[in-house]
Amino acid sequence: MKFYDCKPAPSPRRVRIFLAEKEVTLPTEQVDLKAGAHLRPEFAKLNPWRTVPVLELDDGTTISEAGACCRYLEEIYPEPALLGREAKDKALIAMWDHRCEIDGFLAAAEALRNSTPGMKGRALPGPVGYEQIPALAERGKSRLRHFFEVLNERLASSEYIAGPTYSIADITAFVTVEFAGWMKLVPAENQMHLLRWLEAMRERPSSAA
Amino acid sequence: MKFYDCKPAPSPRRVRIFLAEKEVTLPTEQVDLKAGAHLRPEFAKLNPWRTVPVLELDDGTTISEAGACCRYLEEIYPEPALLGREAKDKALIAMWDHRCEIDGFLAAAEALRNSTPGMKGRALPGPVGYEQIPALAERGKSRLRHFFEVLNERLASSEYIAGPTYSIADITAFVTVEFAGWMKLVPAENQMHLLRWLEAMRERPSSAA
Repeated sequence: MKFYDCKPAPSPRRVRIFLAEKEVTLPTEQVDLKAGAHLRPEFAKLNPWRTVPVLELDDGTTISEAGACCRYLEEIYPEPALLGREAKDKALIAMWDHRCEIDGFLAAAEALRNSTPGMKGRALPGPVGYEQIPALAERGKSRLRHFFEVLNERLASSEYIAGPTYSIADITAFVTVEFAGWMKLVPAENQMHLLRWLEAMRERPSSAA
Repeated sequence: MKFYDCKPAPSPRRVRIFLAEKEVTLPTEQVDLKAGAHLRPEFAKLNPWRTVPVLELDDGTTISEAGACCRYLEEIYPEPALLGREAKDKALIAMWDHRCEIDGFLAAAEALRNSTPGMKGRALPGPVGYEQIPALAERGKSRLRHFFEVLNERLASSEYIAGPTYSIADITAFVTVEFAGWMKLVPAENQMHLLRWLEAMRERPSSAA
């Protein structure tokens, strides 16, 4: 199995942290997104959506999308379980992970891609070039502020995002909070539950991934 | 267990079809989205994101988000498997389902919510009101056209969306194609693989759900 990564990018970081939590190291190739390596025909064969992360299995099958990569890794390396053990936990983790992705991660991507001069004509990842929509950058930032509030409220009564156990939802939320920091959006001083959790996330060795 | 549904809405339809494929019937309550029943405080207790579908378990736990509801149902009613059986299938199904959701379902929601007069100030689901962005409605339609092309190309070499077996990815794609029809976006006559698959989907008894 081979892992296609891009060290500065937040999306493959979700898989890097997932691997680090499982203490698994895979043969890894860095894909230079800045140089447009993901837009070359060789890469399109690996992933027609032109995104990292990608897992290439030994039989040549390629799996893209961070969540799908983690789904595969959870099956192959089940411990520690990061997608849940019982039916209810699996569902609650899937629910929180999905909300963190849609309300947090996608909002951060929206804010960045629709405002960064170097991303003109690349407002969405993938093979099609879409123009920036400035109002969408603003909405993305506004959604992120609300996302921080939701996390803070959730973490007032829960140690981790999806419940009493660390899970993939913490990974998605943590990567999102740090991604939002690129746009100078950080938790407010009075969001003490979010700050408590963020500090705990940063203390985990996987945060270096 | 109780299922909170809204018969005309596409998002809970993903769960309705999932249940129909498993031949499971649950006690169901219709939530009148048109009348704003999801924005009332009683409903916020069930689901702070104010969306359907929601599954309420017998212990009071509530699971929202269509994918998370299906994750739970797959555990409780494993046959027929709709999320895959082996590690690789599970990952490929998760990958295709995610792409259908992001590139298809969310694009359709973007197109509808940013253009429908009755959805002014409700451009995103959830507790926060966001204003419509007309450029986003246009982009959503453009993304849907590209999504149809991707599906057609995929279905030229695969019987179902994620491979040789019917899965949740077919459900998400099918609900999306019918949702796009609300905006008069339909597959082109020469998208014969997509049309072949669409006909097969419509012939399944679950399509009535």
